[in-house]
Amino acid sequence: MGQRIVFERQPRIVAVSTIAGTKECEGIVGRYVETALADDMFGESTYEKAECKMLSHVIDGAISNAHLARNEVDLIVSGDLLNQIISASFAARDFSVPFLGVYGACSTMAESLALAAAFVDGGYFRHVVAATGSHFASAERQYRYPLELGCTRPPQSQWTVTGAGASLVAGEGDGIRITSATLGKVVDYGITDVNNMGAAMAPAAADTILTHFRETGEEPDAYDLIVTGDLGALGSRILKDLTWEKGLDIGDNHIDCGEIVYNVLEDEFQGGSGAGCSAIVLNSYLHAKMMAGEFHRILFLATGALLSTVSSGQGESIPCIAHAVTLEK
Amino acid sequence: MGQRIVFERQPRIVAVSTIAGTKECEGIVGRYVETALADDMFGESTYEKAECKMLSHVIDGAISNAHLARNEVDLIVSGDLLNQIISASFAARDFSVPFLGVYGACSTMAESLALAAAFVDGGYFRHVVAATGSHFASAERQYRYPLELGCTRPPQSQWTVTGAGASLVAGEGDGIRITSATLGKVVDYGITDVNNMGAAMAPAAADTILTHFRETGEEPDAYDLIVTGDLGALGSRILKDLTWEKGLDIGDNHIDCGEIVYNVLEDEFQGGSGAGCSAIVLNSYLHAKMMAGEFHRILFLATGALLSTVSSGQGESIPCIAHAVTLEK
Repeated sequence: MGQRIVFERQPRIVAVSTIAGTKECEGIVGRYVETALADDMFGESTYEKAECKMLSHVIDGAISNAHLARNEVDLIVSGDLLNQIISASFAARDFSVPFLGVYGACSTMAESLALAAAFVDGGYFRHVVAATGSHFASAERQYRYPLELGCTRPPQSQWTVTGAGASLVAGEGDGIRITSATLGKVVDYGITDVNNMGAAMAPAAADTILTHFRETGEEPDAYDLIVTGDLGALGSRILKDLTWEKGLDIGDNHIDCGEIVYNVLEDEFQGGSGAGCSAIVLNSYLHAKMMAGEFHRILFLATGALLSTVSSGQGESIPCIAHAVTLEK
Repeated sequence: MGQRIVFERQPRIVAVSTIAGTKECEGIVGRYVETALADDMFGESTYEKAECKMLSHVIDGAISNAHLARNEVDLIVSGDLLNQIISASFAARDFSVPFLGVYGACSTMAESLALAAAFVDGGYFRHVVAATGSHFASAERQYRYPLELGCTRPPQSQWTVTGAGASLVAGEGDGIRITSATLGKVVDYGITDVNNMGAAMAPAAADTILTHFRETGEEPDAYDLIVTGDLGALGSRILKDLTWEKGLDIGDNHIDCGEIVYNVLEDEFQGGSGAGCSAIVLNSYLHAKMMAGEFHRILFLATGALLSTVSSGQGESIPCIAHAVTLEK
């Protein structure tokens, strides 16, 4: 049947909500973010609790922005980068709403959006929230080194975004229509450098993009933008090379959330990463531009690196995945 | 809309596959397991790699048992207990098939089955594999203590099952029909004892069971069995008390996979647990009994404790969830 599913009823994103850290709000995307944190701890005692609170905040925000009561929401689909997706699970505890936990690393925004659209399109539920987020400090502590150690970051590294975003998907109403989803396969080109996620994830993004265009028969110019989640500057160049080699030129309309999320003057090497990266860019900047009529059709992909510290410690390479959704206004 | 979704097309489980460890295969369920391991390392160098190999083995087994080629499978929905669900992600790498990673701790078999059924029922895909597993040694190392330390286990503890199970869900064919799913909310009664998962998870199971019977208007005797995943002996008693207090008597037809998975002579305190527990019981014993006509209608619930070592270390209680699917033959 192919990897692409078409949503005949065209579920729509009727409301969004975003929150981001101090560094993120200095960048290009920052001015579009709904809630700018003055303090990355968000008044909590630990980074993990701050991350969870951000996620809870945007789920609540999306529900409020859709003018719905909590008991009108049928399902929350969410996940995050922390072990056992505690941010999502603990955030869901705040809402008396059915919950499906997902794990797709930084691909979570696209995965949860595809699932939300499928549940609404299938007629199972009316209002579904898709949400994810990440926190720089909790991600560094879990995946790399605690910030307190002051470790040097290599030039191919990216900066995990402190931020969260949520989309409220409904069967009717005014908003951005989700017209299809192309679900990705796990792709592994044998990259083992855990500081070079862009190189590891680019082949997965290329695989899903090539599949999407093969299955639809479209050309890249059918989209105002082909947006990837967090390949960063290096990963984006690799993606363009990989698709070019297969005869698909996406150079004219590809952007990467990781590349645009920070101000160019900020010293974050390849750009932003993390589940929160594509979540805030989609639900603030891209949403605003689509609603304003500047972009009409976007292919939104989020990529995830499906490694753990244990898998890398045991010598494994980094399997990656990318899911895509087609957004139209 | 309520928490229950009805699958009008009644997707069916057309094939299953299971694998289990040496201890598991000595129990009641063991004789129904398809592949009995002679060695819990499964020929691998680490417990995590063995867990991943088990999951890959049953995904492959379910596809073979359905007489399908790998390229006829449209989607794999899977997750496990390890950080970043590496077993599922690395297993999915072996198959060139779209993959959705989920995390619901020990509720994963029910969550993945509900998602697989929704994707088939919605007409998006024809053949979807739902799979999960766990390994005693990798779970102990990650959640508690490495086995090499020889720590004493308290009497309220359960034994994580070494095993994996997969169901192949299709839109047509002979098999067990999945007629509805009741998706659970996150429930937290404030339990903080990480060695007493049964007590933490029982309220989530009770919530989903009470919701299911309230929304359907059925009585418990509409089911041959109401099966929970891994509450264990103590958790099962708490579940029966909690539902009894709310006027629902499930005592006559409730069984728990954790309670039946081991031989009573084995010294595992409250019984089995882990994502693999309900996965092997559903896909071996329960599947065989349903196909043989001994059971006609089962409410299958799997419960998950959504904690991490970090959340417990930061003083958090244990939020839990339970998803249910209705199985008919």
